Amino acid sequence: MLAEIITIGDEILIGQIVDTNSAWMAKELNAAGIKVKQITSVSDDADHITEALSQAEKRAEIILITGGLGPTKDDITKYTLAKYFNMGMRRDAAVLAHVEEIFKRFNRPMIESNRKQADVPDGCTVIQNANGTAPCMWFDHNGTIIVSMPGVPFEMMYLMEDEIIPRLKKKFELPFIYHKTILTANIGESFLAQEIEEIEDSLPSSIKLAYLPKLGQVRLRLSTSGTDEAQLKADVEVYAQQIIKKVKPYIVAEEDIAIEKAILDIMKEKGFTLSTSESCTGGYIAHLITQHPGCSAVFAGGAVAYSYELKELVGVTDETLAKYGAVSEQTVKEMALGAITNFKTDYSVAVSGIAGPDGGTPDKPVGTVWIAVANKHKVVAKLFTFGNKRAQNIERSAIAALTMILNLLKEDSN
Amino acid sequence: MLAEIITIGDEILIGQIVDTNSAWMAKELNAAGIKVKQITSVSDDADHITEALSQAEKRAEIILITGGLGPTKDDITKYTLAKYFNMGMRRDAAVLAHVEEIFKRFNRPMIESNRKQADVPDGCTVIQNANGTAPCMWFDHNGTIIVSMPGVPFEMMYLMEDEIIPRLKKKFELPFIYHKTILTANIGESFLAQEIEEIEDSLPSSIKLAYLPKLGQVRLRLSTSGTDEAQLKADVEVYAQQIIKKVKPYIVAEEDIAIEKAILDIMKEKGFTLSTSESCTGGYIAHLITQHPGCSAVFAGGAVAYSYELKELVGVTDETLAKYGAVSEQTVKEMALGAITNFKTDYSVAVSGIAGPDGGTPDKPVGTVWIAVANKHKVVAKLFTFGNKRAQNIERSAIAALTMILNLLKEDSN
Repeated sequence: MLAEIITIGDEILIGQIVDTNSAWMAKELNAAGIKVKQITSVSDDADHITEALSQAEKRAEIILITGGLGPTKDDITKYTLAKYFNMGMRRDAAVLAHVEEIFKRFNRPMIESNRKQADVPDGCTVIQNANGTAPCMWFDHNGTIIVSMPGVPFEMMYLMEDEIIPRLKKKFELPFIYHKTILTANIGESFLAQEIEEIEDSLPSSIKLAYLPKLGQVRLRLSTSGTDEAQLKADVEVYAQQIIKKVKPYIVAEEDIAIEKAILDIMKEKGFTLSTSESCTGGYIAHLITQHPGCSAVFAGGAVAYSYELKELVGVTDETLAKYGAVSEQTVKEMALGAITNFKTDYSVAVSGIAGPDGGTPDKPVGTVWIAVANKHKVVAKLFTFGNKRAQNIERSAIAALTMILNLLKEDSN
Repeated sequence: MLAEIITIGDEILIGQIVDTNSAWMAKELNAAGIKVKQITSVSDDADHITEALSQAEKRAEIILITGGLGPTKDDITKYTLAKYFNMGMRRDAAVLAHVEEIFKRFNRPMIESNRKQADVPDGCTVIQNANGTAPCMWFDHNGTIIVSMPGVPFEMMYLMEDEIIPRLKKKFELPFIYHKTILTANIGESFLAQEIEEIEDSLPSSIKLAYLPKLGQVRLRLSTSGTDEAQLKADVEVYAQQIIKKVKPYIVAEEDIAIEKAILDIMKEKGFTLSTSESCTGGYIAHLITQHPGCSAVFAGGAVAYSYELKELVGVTDETLAKYGAVSEQTVKEMALGAITNFKTDYSVAVSGIAGPDGGTPDKPVGTVWIAVANKHKVVAKLFTFGNKRAQNIERSAIAALTMILNLLKEDSN
């Protein structure tokens, strides 16, 4: 069963927003046994929407469309769909009541453009949007299902989870798609490939292996699909376990999780706690960690020590800052040890560097980053030299810091 | 001049990664006067890549492709392109030398799959990739330019900035595309539309207005294109200023910046400093702020006070925590005032809430968030009730907190 996603909006094509909806929808569809053949982003232009839809209909049986359902004049999706399917427009009483109820709840007056939110093509099934005013529209076009949803992420997410996926499961007999992901660190993609070449060559054609490298980590993904869920999992697991055994020292997790989640899982199991002391990463490591539900069992918190004053508050001495500077082995070690002491945790990580674009010197150019990890018995610091792009320096510093925590944890348990 | 972007990779279509490359590329292309007609994501499948490319060639004169250039077996882009253009493959000596140099620098042995990175279709122009082993390939297909780049974001970014955009500017006579964005807050999309309806109706057909709502903010974007840069800007500015005058109280910024950047700009100008004290947002507000170059002139840092212990460290009393709990008006106010005192800043913001999915109670369900902003003279707290999704609660809390800082700043300057 193939699906396509069409996201509509000029803001995507001029790069004003990143289309995060598609990845989320693709994941949900996959979990339901539906493969995504293509994702297409087009502008708020009737002809272009029509062309994309008609081509998608040639390739897929399910087409999910997001965007262009707002109350303003640039939102043309539903009118374009009505024309495409040769339908008129009608005002839906239930949607109108829902919109009126929302405006009443927030004590706001309604204007005609809000009422127009209740206008829908007259041949579609209307699905109420519990979290917004734009309804979802479901079309059955000679057996092909076309669904139009708002582009606001959380409105789309609720609709997908509560309405669209259940309805698709009812409408189609869906196969089972299985992905097994293995997260590795500290080994390059081509070396990993060389290590597991024999296993890769022995894979049956029904199982596909992919390498997804990112910032010093490589995700290995084994994929298959079919009808017998237990059998598919068992088949993949045979090869997954061969790979895991072959490259054991580099394995971070045997599932598709982020490195910080792997750290949280290990620390939770062992009853360890963690704190952070961040300068150039500016709270990004704490943010990565606190994205994960249940992190509070491990993560106590930390400091974003941007100013000298705050660095002193978290345990760096005046003398160290004066003698070695904020970006130095000494400072970052004192930050890490200060976190252990002040925040009362078993482990800590500290980062101090020059993220750029300004602040570099000949001695310490932009991209110079010191990272330290500590537990109650030791502190280890490492110097990194990244590039000259701020966002990448923050990202790479965070991943390097997390990898260092993981390595210290592994060392401690050996 | 129309371009299309094709991103290749199964990881996009199963939702394992979010395609952030396309938005970045679209922005760069726009700035160079090139409109993006469509963005298409396809799998690592030769037939599908070929189909997408051949359709893109019907619509656009420039096609930028990313992905599928790695050293492993699932990477087939360059072989598919060679077949599509009826070319053979050759090993490029300069690329091979570059790859060898990289391996030498990192003191790593080379294997055959690394050498294959130097294989390219024999009719393309090879552009060296200074930041990786996969070269960039430039094809001129009867006047249509097709460029294949690696999907690793920072490799692609350097190639676009240093090589592709300059070459496209040289090859084509490009028009000028101008977008003017106005950021508003505290007003809904439809009300904003009603307020500026007369101005919108008076726009010439050459200027397009779009509304981009997100979490309590609405971006207004006026777009136009042509050859006379100064004239285009002047034309748009007339209408932009009319809009700004009409909805003055809601204006956050007269350019396409994030709300935290608008705050940094105002505070920098006034010589104010800022600190954060975050519980449920877990460092996300600090991260948003520290993304921006030069933020250290304003931002001193802050605390991620996840544990009770850390909350006490940042100024919340034992009694308050015991009597009112961590998610309460009293706690969040003490966090904000503690930040002012301990971190020695003019302004502070504090957030404490239940991000979920666990931790909710009948009294304080998941999504309950208290936010306080303070300066040296006052502290204001507000209760929010968001939804039950952790990521959205973090995002919405952060934006609400930033909006509260901005409102307090505006109040103070009146």
